Amino acid sequence: MTLDLLDTPAAIIDVRRMTTNIAAMQARMNALGVKFRPHVKTSKCLDVVKAQIAAGAQGIAVSTLKEAETFFAAGITDILYAVSIAPSKLARVAALRQQGCDLKIIVDNTSAASGIVAFCQSTHETLEVWIEVDTDGHRSGITPEEDALLDIGRILHAGGVEVGGVLTHAGSSYELNTREALAALAEQERAGCMHAAERLRAAGIPCNTVSVGSTPTALAARQLDGVTEVRAGVYAFFDLVMHNVGVCPIDDIALSVLTTVIGHQTDKGWVIVDAGWMAMSRDRGTSKQSHDFGYGLPCTLDGTPLEGFVLIGANQEHGILAPIDANSASHNADLKARFPVGTRLRILPNHACATGAQFPEYHALHPDGDLAVWPRFHGW
Amino acid sequence: MTLDLLDTPAAIIDVRRMTTNIAAMQARMNALGVKFRPHVKTSKCLDVVKAQIAAGAQGIAVSTLKEAETFFAAGITDILYAVSIAPSKLARVAALRQQGCDLKIIVDNTSAASGIVAFCQSTHETLEVWIEVDTDGHRSGITPEEDALLDIGRILHAGGVEVGGVLTHAGSSYELNTREALAALAEQERAGCMHAAERLRAAGIPCNTVSVGSTPTALAARQLDGVTEVRAGVYAFFDLVMHNVGVCPIDDIALSVLTTVIGHQTDKGWVIVDAGWMAMSRDRGTSKQSHDFGYGLPCTLDGTPLEGFVLIGANQEHGILAPIDANSASHNADLKARFPVGTRLRILPNHACATGAQFPEYHALHPDGDLAVWPRFHGW
Repeated sequence: MTLDLLDTPAAIIDVRRMTTNIAAMQARMNALGVKFRPHVKTSKCLDVVKAQIAAGAQGIAVSTLKEAETFFAAGITDILYAVSIAPSKLARVAALRQQGCDLKIIVDNTSAASGIVAFCQSTHETLEVWIEVDTDGHRSGITPEEDALLDIGRILHAGGVEVGGVLTHAGSSYELNTREALAALAEQERAGCMHAAERLRAAGIPCNTVSVGSTPTALAARQLDGVTEVRAGVYAFFDLVMHNVGVCPIDDIALSVLTTVIGHQTDKGWVIVDAGWMAMSRDRGTSKQSHDFGYGLPCTLDGTPLEGFVLIGANQEHGILAPIDANSASHNADLKARFPVGTRLRILPNHACATGAQFPEYHALHPDGDLAVWPRFHGW
Repeated sequence: MTLDLLDTPAAIIDVRRMTTNIAAMQARMNALGVKFRPHVKTSKCLDVVKAQIAAGAQGIAVSTLKEAETFFAAGITDILYAVSIAPSKLARVAALRQQGCDLKIIVDNTSAASGIVAFCQSTHETLEVWIEVDTDGHRSGITPEEDALLDIGRILHAGGVEVGGVLTHAGSSYELNTREALAALAEQERAGCMHAAERLRAAGIPCNTVSVGSTPTALAARQLDGVTEVRAGVYAFFDLVMHNVGVCPIDDIALSVLTTVIGHQTDKGWVIVDAGWMAMSRDRGTSKQSHDFGYGLPCTLDGTPLEGFVLIGANQEHGILAPIDANSASHNADLKARFPVGTRLRILPNHACATGAQFPEYHALHPDGDLAVWPRFHGW
């Protein structure tokens, strides 16, 4: 099978780029002296995760229990479920641990902590819990200075539940776009998480792990003293949002959507392709960044970006490719000749996690031109 | 299984509402004297499609060949693949027809028409082709007055390929919000498609079918003289976009996402739930409408909307539920007491087609409280 013959739309992984991205992150983590735990929510694909582990990753982070179950079934045991637990999910967590999965869960509130203690006491289960720390105010977690940090630690520790560590995720890094600002946020993430760990330890609560990370801060951090592990996900593929954040050139983006031209609206300067939002996802993450790529950046079949074009619109199975400058008559005049019906293009996505999730499988393009099917899963 | 115990997030279909929506559309089509062909891209679920056929639908429209293959395997033969064909897809189309599937394809350009003729002549296949007409300028198709309409018809007809009809989709109806404007667009859609059919017939090209439709125009049309069939998809579930368009009350929306509260950020007035964009989709279709519902409208477990709240933000597996009026101190003060960790809610989606696509299955909530698993599929 070749890119010329594959049914479209299809999600293509450039294996050489992916391998380079994985190696570069792992080398950086090795140099900083920390364990690296990839967040597998980006790919949900065993072939990708195997490449991450082969490069030196230790353990994985997951965003759903289905990921934990699927990757544990494939032989991975060190798993962090990095979304604050709801007590109703504890039975599924315990079932995995009983089978030998070293699954860790997280909390950021006393209510869930009490629920975990009650569950462990009534079922005689043991669970390992990490406490989620909020170091940049962007979503969940408790700030390092809050009383609740120690309250949660004491509830768990006194209740006989292992407090394994603290973790944070500086998700606001996606809103930055300079090396200086990213490095400053990485230091804020490190210092805040370390401070939380020190407060717990000072209160007599064990806290072995200090886990931080986001792709931008992982790539910008200058030192990670006190941190024991870093988590990141999208770095394996990168995407246009990460390009705008400033952590990858366009040429590092390893995921693209293969598409076929199916028509034109010449008067409007539109080329219609068979990759709509069902293929690209509805993610418009670049809309508020320095460069708005619409629903994606089209490239030729060999991956060369079509400068001056973006996917300006998307219906369910129709994408609208057009010049950014709609008044560019020279562009419009030759659109039909330049991109006749049947032309194949590859579209780089705004957000690799969202675009990948639209597909039941990737097609992995190896450097020798071989195309392999790499299954992925979805759901919870 | 009950809504209290189901793993979250989960996509819930209120079967009573869905059945009512399906019956109402079918009754309307029966009264207007046209065949009704549901677009099954919304649900991609055999249980839903069976309910549409039981109510009187004749044939289906699909947006992917995988839908055609899956529903044909389930016994449905009259299928319209309603996305302009790329010649590279013809082998898959022919394979279905050889098995007995009455699969129709569409084109809006002479290039694809010539490709179809060449394919049929070289393979000795017969194909039925409809011509896509553009009656509102929103996406693809050729306008009823264009020379290309007759060019396409002649290429196909002279090449021995059956021209089965014309079709149009007034997708710009999603941008309207008054009954008058919708009725006017429905008439424009009908008249334009009819005019295209008449031009073909006058040129000696057969054109039996005149197919129009979108959920808003189907529900607003006052007469459909000359039209032989109507297509619509999202009407089976409805959603917040359709509510803003003015074609359904909130209480008709049959799809919701069951979610669990997993934390709070009290200072910000946020309730964190386990339905992020992976569950809701990234669709922000209401963002430019009269009422912006963020990532969805939360309801209590029995389906009662929580007035004054929306899902203001979404990360991959985190949704942020908050009062619309962020300064409403009375709202914020009791958020933790009103929605403690573990609370279950149901979130109505902006766009049912996009939200449904995030799930491997629906959970169908029957009027007696029984919950059944209804599988759905994705991919191409």
